[in-house]
Amino acid sequence: MKKIGVALLGLGTVGGGTYEILTKNREYFRKTLGLDVEVKAVLEKNLERAKSLGVDEKIVFTDISAVTANPEIEIVAEFFGGIEPARTFLIEALKAGKSIVTANKELFSKHWFELEAAAKETGAGLYFEASCVGGVPIIRTIEEGMQANHIEEIKGIINGTTNYILTAMSDEGSEYGEALKRAQELGYAEFDPTADVEGFDATYKISILSTLAYHKRVPIEKVSREGISKVDAADIKIGKELGYTMKLLAVSKNRNGKIEARVAPVFVPSTHPLASVKGSFNAVYLHGDSVDDIMLYGRGAGALPTGSAIVSDILYCAKQASHKRYPFAENVECVDKDFVSDYVAKFYIRLSAEDVEGVLAKITSVLKNKNINIEAVLQKKPVSKDNAQIVFVTDNVKETSIKKAIEEIKNLGAVKQVEALYRIEE
Amino acid sequence: MKKIGVALLGLGTVGGGTYEILTKNREYFRKTLGLDVEVKAVLEKNLERAKSLGVDEKIVFTDISAVTANPEIEIVAEFFGGIEPARTFLIEALKAGKSIVTANKELFSKHWFELEAAAKETGAGLYFEASCVGGVPIIRTIEEGMQANHIEEIKGIINGTTNYILTAMSDEGSEYGEALKRAQELGYAEFDPTADVEGFDATYKISILSTLAYHKRVPIEKVSREGISKVDAADIKIGKELGYTMKLLAVSKNRNGKIEARVAPVFVPSTHPLASVKGSFNAVYLHGDSVDDIMLYGRGAGALPTGSAIVSDILYCAKQASHKRYPFAENVECVDKDFVSDYVAKFYIRLSAEDVEGVLAKITSVLKNKNINIEAVLQKKPVSKDNAQIVFVTDNVKETSIKKAIEEIKNLGAVKQVEALYRIEE
Repeated sequence: MKKIGVALLGLGTVGGGTYEILTKNREYFRKTLGLDVEVKAVLEKNLERAKSLGVDEKIVFTDISAVTANPEIEIVAEFFGGIEPARTFLIEALKAGKSIVTANKELFSKHWFELEAAAKETGAGLYFEASCVGGVPIIRTIEEGMQANHIEEIKGIINGTTNYILTAMSDEGSEYGEALKRAQELGYAEFDPTADVEGFDATYKISILSTLAYHKRVPIEKVSREGISKVDAADIKIGKELGYTMKLLAVSKNRNGKIEARVAPVFVPSTHPLASVKGSFNAVYLHGDSVDDIMLYGRGAGALPTGSAIVSDILYCAKQASHKRYPFAENVECVDKDFVSDYVAKFYIRLSAEDVEGVLAKITSVLKNKNINIEAVLQKKPVSKDNAQIVFVTDNVKETSIKKAIEEIKNLGAVKQVEALYRIEE
Repeated sequence: MKKIGVALLGLGTVGGGTYEILTKNREYFRKTLGLDVEVKAVLEKNLERAKSLGVDEKIVFTDISAVTANPEIEIVAEFFGGIEPARTFLIEALKAGKSIVTANKELFSKHWFELEAAAKETGAGLYFEASCVGGVPIIRTIEEGMQANHIEEIKGIINGTTNYILTAMSDEGSEYGEALKRAQELGYAEFDPTADVEGFDATYKISILSTLAYHKRVPIEKVSREGISKVDAADIKIGKELGYTMKLLAVSKNRNGKIEARVAPVFVPSTHPLASVKGSFNAVYLHGDSVDDIMLYGRGAGALPTGSAIVSDILYCAKQASHKRYPFAENVECVDKDFVSDYVAKFYIRLSAEDVEGVLAKITSVLKNKNINIEAVLQKKPVSKDNAQIVFVTDNVKETSIKKAIEEIKNLGAVKQVEALYRIEE
């Protein structure tokens, strides 16, 4: 039977979940996969934490050299998160010929080339299924299930925190601050929620998924990013009336080599499968030229779901005759000309105005002059006489056109403010 | 670059789609995967069909020996469907050391051991991702994405024909015969629809998926099977009012080694993700002990979606250092004691009765004596005086108990008939 020694760097939530899955199922993996996977070392400063998980203190270390110097360790799984010391430790592990497994999307999206170069030096492998959409095998699906396709589109709800908040705002009518507070109380949001609510986390993930899907490096700098902290519950409510559900969507498209990548709160039709993905669940919708649409749905976070993906990678790696795996074989960095800068979409626009009667005709005329067709107009009762709300849904239009039109509309005397502007993703 | 010769047995719909994907993308696969995959032989009696697809007639044969004798062919993909000649040809291919790729669920579910034995003789591999749920990588997910889990449950809409028919009955109120006729006109149902509408096709697939998920052979004989040809549109309509959607569900459960496997029309809550899977789309819901719930959604049939899965298997096989792949390493056939014969579920029961007032109390008393709790009672206006319809939804109850209760209810004077009995799968 093939014996595989594993080291776990860090025993936080996911590290602990991984240790639990590996030890509880050691006999099961022997029987079902013919692999004997043993945790040979753990890097953890908090010895009490390690002991509380049942880890033998003889294998608890604080220095990475205890891992890199151990010839029995073939695979190193990292759970620190963030850039340092994860980066330094993983580079050292790769240089010592250990394959690495990680859920660290920030590290991976920012230092992919460096990790890959270090791996190539020794023939070690890079495994990061857990970095995107927790326990859902999205990377395996792109690489081993859809590899016969030109993948043309990825649309994902890939951040559980923001989906929890938006679901609460949509289903219960909560305001953003209220929903965030509850998410924090329940452990779905961090004390400092910036990485999630401002879309950074989703940006890391869509960068990784797009790079794999399009065989071209889509760096995070090329992903336009907008968070949900400015979303007004009023727009979620009005959107609902118009048949739309608001989601923080990570979207990337590849049209004949031209790539578009964005993370933003958008409206999706309420009948779309993504609209029914609620709470902290995640889902990714993919379109391939042969397979058509595929959707994967599941838990994007949590000790055991993410641990499941980490252990899946450990077993997948262990099974290979050679661990070598450089998913991004060529260093094809995208260049500016590979990107679309003028996106086409339908837009939702909400304006506040002093006098609805007078202003409607003026706005319509601005839009008409810019060849922007209007699909729907909704006029909400004014809260006060000089605060009427007008909502427009446009037909497909270039982003630059809509932005120019909005500049003109802002200057119309009776328009007080452009309160909201959202894309509609169909 | 690794060169891989492929033979295609049959150029029907999926065979044609596969040829198209392989030839159109040859350069793409070279570039993205470093694999040069070439179709070296095609087995097809209809030379005109082959020529119309652009196949060079020099590689069109009618005798399997042209494939088995060609040392340049490493992988044989089969598209005949049914048992013969697929079985004989594939066994010959395996004995000649060729790995096989197939979408043939009937062959695979019935002759798995035989194929596996032949493969082991020569070290060839068995690949059958396309046999279940078309282009959706469900087998890859079970084997390479959820292998860290004890999979406890599979619930799938895995037959597009019946889902198309049930969706039409549900959304448009069509009767079964009407919906079937339309499905046939649109090519979603065969001229003889038995294999689909009577649940045979779904039985083959759930047998394959359960065997892989539970690491124990679940033969088709152990899958209880009920089709949709007797489904009355009236029950779909009443179910809707009660918050349920009818689906032909293939369900299997593994509870501490006790397996339950069924294909039957059942009700699912209309809020369940499976309820929103419409038309010819397929979806599979899986539950693993670590990853919790996962759902995969996509096209279960069609030339290109199924072709996508076939080509995915060809590329996956081609990439391996060794083709050997015996997914069912041990010949662990399930025995009778491994199966649950007395399933627990909620039930939907519709009765026709002469006199509602009198009969309700009697039925309630029968159920009460059997310790069956009632969750809901619905009384429909009688079509005629002596044809009132009464619907009961029970709490969880053993199947034997409900069957005994129904026998007693049938004998109550005023009950004319038990019109329908469906399980509710939550």
